[in-house]
Amino acid sequence: MEKITVSIGKSSYPITIASGLLTNLITFLPLEQKSTVMIVTNQTLAPIFLKEITQHLNKQGIKVNNVILPDGEKYKTWESINYIFNELLNNLHGRDTILIALGGGVIGDLTGFAAAIYQRGIKYIQIPTTFLAQVDAAIGGKTGVNHELGKNMIGAFHQPIAVIIDTDFLLSLSSRQFASGIAEVIKYAVIFDEQFFYWLEQNIDALISLNPQALEYCIRRCCELKANVISSDEKEIRGIRVLLNFGHTFGHAIEAYMGYGNWLHGEAIAVGMIMAARTAEHLKIFQSQHTNRIIALLQRAKLPVNGPIEMKATDYLPYMQRDKKVFSKKMHLVLPTKIGSAILHKSVSDKILVAAINECRIFTELKNNIQI
Amino acid sequence: MEKITVSIGKSSYPITIASGLLTNLITFLPLEQKSTVMIVTNQTLAPIFLKEITQHLNKQGIKVNNVILPDGEKYKTWESINYIFNELLNNLHGRDTILIALGGGVIGDLTGFAAAIYQRGIKYIQIPTTFLAQVDAAIGGKTGVNHELGKNMIGAFHQPIAVIIDTDFLLSLSSRQFASGIAEVIKYAVIFDEQFFYWLEQNIDALISLNPQALEYCIRRCCELKANVISSDEKEIRGIRVLLNFGHTFGHAIEAYMGYGNWLHGEAIAVGMIMAARTAEHLKIFQSQHTNRIIALLQRAKLPVNGPIEMKATDYLPYMQRDKKVFSKKMHLVLPTKIGSAILHKSVSDKILVAAINECRIFTELKNNIQI
Repeated sequence: MEKITVSIGKSSYPITIASGLLTNLITFLPLEQKSTVMIVTNQTLAPIFLKEITQHLNKQGIKVNNVILPDGEKYKTWESINYIFNELLNNLHGRDTILIALGGGVIGDLTGFAAAIYQRGIKYIQIPTTFLAQVDAAIGGKTGVNHELGKNMIGAFHQPIAVIIDTDFLLSLSSRQFASGIAEVIKYAVIFDEQFFYWLEQNIDALISLNPQALEYCIRRCCELKANVISSDEKEIRGIRVLLNFGHTFGHAIEAYMGYGNWLHGEAIAVGMIMAARTAEHLKIFQSQHTNRIIALLQRAKLPVNGPIEMKATDYLPYMQRDKKVFSKKMHLVLPTKIGSAILHKSVSDKILVAAINECRIFTELKNNIQI
Repeated sequence: MEKITVSIGKSSYPITIASGLLTNLITFLPLEQKSTVMIVTNQTLAPIFLKEITQHLNKQGIKVNNVILPDGEKYKTWESINYIFNELLNNLHGRDTILIALGGGVIGDLTGFAAAIYQRGIKYIQIPTTFLAQVDAAIGGKTGVNHELGKNMIGAFHQPIAVIIDTDFLLSLSSRQFASGIAEVIKYAVIFDEQFFYWLEQNIDALISLNPQALEYCIRRCCELKANVISSDEKEIRGIRVLLNFGHTFGHAIEAYMGYGNWLHGEAIAVGMIMAARTAEHLKIFQSQHTNRIIALLQRAKLPVNGPIEMKATDYLPYMQRDKKVFSKKMHLVLPTKIGSAILHKSVSDKILVAAINECRIFTELKNNIQI
C-alpha cells in the first residue's frame, strides 16, 4: 500500500493506493459514526458496487443516500449538478454531509463542483474508478462542468478530504478507457520527469497488461508528481500547475468540436501533445527526435497521434481562443522544451498553430487507422 | 470619507464610504490600465448609470463590457448566472477580467457567484446601490443563487477585491427599499452592539430622512461590525458569523413561501427577528420588554413585525428545516439573549416554534395594517 500526502496548509489530504481497498473502505475514509454521506456515481458502476459499499457503511452507523447519473462526458453539465442538488435538498442534507465521488473524471468533477457550491461548500471524498482519474483527475481539487461554449469553463478549486485509489477497478476497464489514462501518464513524464518517460518506454507493455507492480508504481509516481505541483501552486497562479495543461488546449478543441465524449479525454490529449510538440519544433525550442519518441510511446499505448479527419486546422482556433489559457486575448500554450521539461509560451501565432495542426492531419489521412 | 479594511489574510480588501464616489470612480477601483472589466447591473440602474461609468473607465484605457439583467430577487437564479457566462465567453473574457457588481444584493450575489466559478474563480468589485447591500450584502463574500427548494442554497464564499459605497445612490431609493435595509441595521445592533441600538432609537428619524451624517455613521458602524465578524470567521465555521443569520431562518421561510421578491428581504427579516425573539422568550433566555423595544424600532422604520396573513405557523416549518442552519436534521436557530448579544441555540422544538410564530400572527390579524 502506498500513502501520499497532498500538502496545502489546512486543506492537506491523504491519497491511499492499493488493491482491495474497497472491501475495507471504512478504514480509509475519514468518516465518523453518524456521519451522513451521499454517494454520487453513474449507471454503469451503480449495479456493480453501490449495494456493497452502502451496506458496508451502514454497518458502521453511517447514513447513506445516493445519486446515480448517466455515464459519459456529455453529462458533465449544470443539469447533472442540479440533479445532485435536488437529491440533497429533498433528503434534507445539511452542511455536514460528505459527498463521495465513485467514478471516473466526470463523476469526480461533478461531485467536487457540487460539493464546492452546495450551501457554499461541503466536504467530499474521491474514489476514482478509471485509470485517468486515478493518475490525474481525482487529485488536485479542479472541479467543474462544461459549458456549450467551452470545456471546464465553469468550476471551482475545491480539494477533497481524501482520495482512495483501488487498483482493482482497473480490471474491469475497456482497453480504450485504460489507454486514455496512459495519455495523462505520458504527459507527466514529458513535462516533468525524463526518467519516468524512460521507465514508461521500458514498461509500457507491462502497464497495458495490468501488471500489478507496474500499475502501482506508475500511479504512485503520477500522484507524487501531481501532489508536488498542487502543493506549490494550488490555484494555478504561479505558473507551475499551468504546465499540467500540456496538450489540453488542442485537446479541448477536439473534444468540443467532435462533441464531448466521442473522443475520450486522453485520446484528445494524446493528439494535443503531438500538436504542441510540433508547435515547439516550429519555434525551434524542441527537437523532432523527441516528438518521435512521444509518438512512438503513444502508439504503443494504442493512442491516436493525429487529429480527427473531420477537423480542419482552422476549426481548432476558435475553441483554442476560448480556452482558459487565453489571457488578455493572447494565446498562451504549454510547450515542451525537452523530454522532462516544459514552459508556458505567451504568444504563438495562428500561422504556426495552423502549420503544426496540419502536420498532425496529413499524417492522419495517410496512416491513421485507429478506430475511434 | 470613511475607509475600513476587511482583513482575511491574502483576501483583505478596502471598503470606501462617501457621497460622490461615482464621479471619480477610477480613484477607488483597484484597476490597472488595459484592465478588462464586465459590469453586471440591472434594467433599472443601467439607463441611469451605465453610460457615465463606461465612458469614465474607457477614458482611462479600460475595456468595458456589460451584462444587464432583469431587476428583482426572482432573477437570482442559475439562469442569470448562465446569461453572464454566455456574455463572458462570447466576448472572450479570460481569467484576468474583473467583474463589477453595480446594484443591490441580488446583483452583488449573482456577480460574486459568477466570479467565484467562472474559469474556477476571477476577481470582482462591489458597488452596492441599495441601503441593504451597503450595510450588509456587499461585504463578506457570501455569494450565490436561490434554488426552488431553498434560498441561497447554491453559492460560494468569494471575497471582492474592493467595496465602493456611494451614499448618493440612496437618494433614489423608494422608502420601502430603504426600510428593508434598516432591518439589517437593527439586526447588527440586536446581536452585537447595545450602544448602537440606543443610537438607532435616537436617530431613526434622521436616518429615514436620509440625513447625510446619520447615514454615513450608520453605514460605517455596520461595515465595522461585519468586517470584524468576517475577519474572524470568514466561512461561518467558528460560530460567530452564523449569528448574522438572526431572523433569517424565519425570514427565508416567508420569502420562499410568498415567492421571492414579493416580500423584500429586509421585511421578511424584520418579522423573523420578532419570531426569534418570541422563541427566545419561550426558552426564558430573553425578556419581552426587549422584544418590545425591537418591535417599536422596527415600526418606526416602517417595517412589518408580523408574518403574512396567508401563512399558517406550520407553513414555516418545512422551509425552516431546509434552511442551511439545519445541521444533522436538528434545528439550529440564532436567538437573542439581550439587546447586543445572541447565541446559536441547537435544538428548538417544533412546539415552541409554532407558538412563537403564532404570536406574530394573531397580532397581525388584529393590528397589522402595513401595506405589503
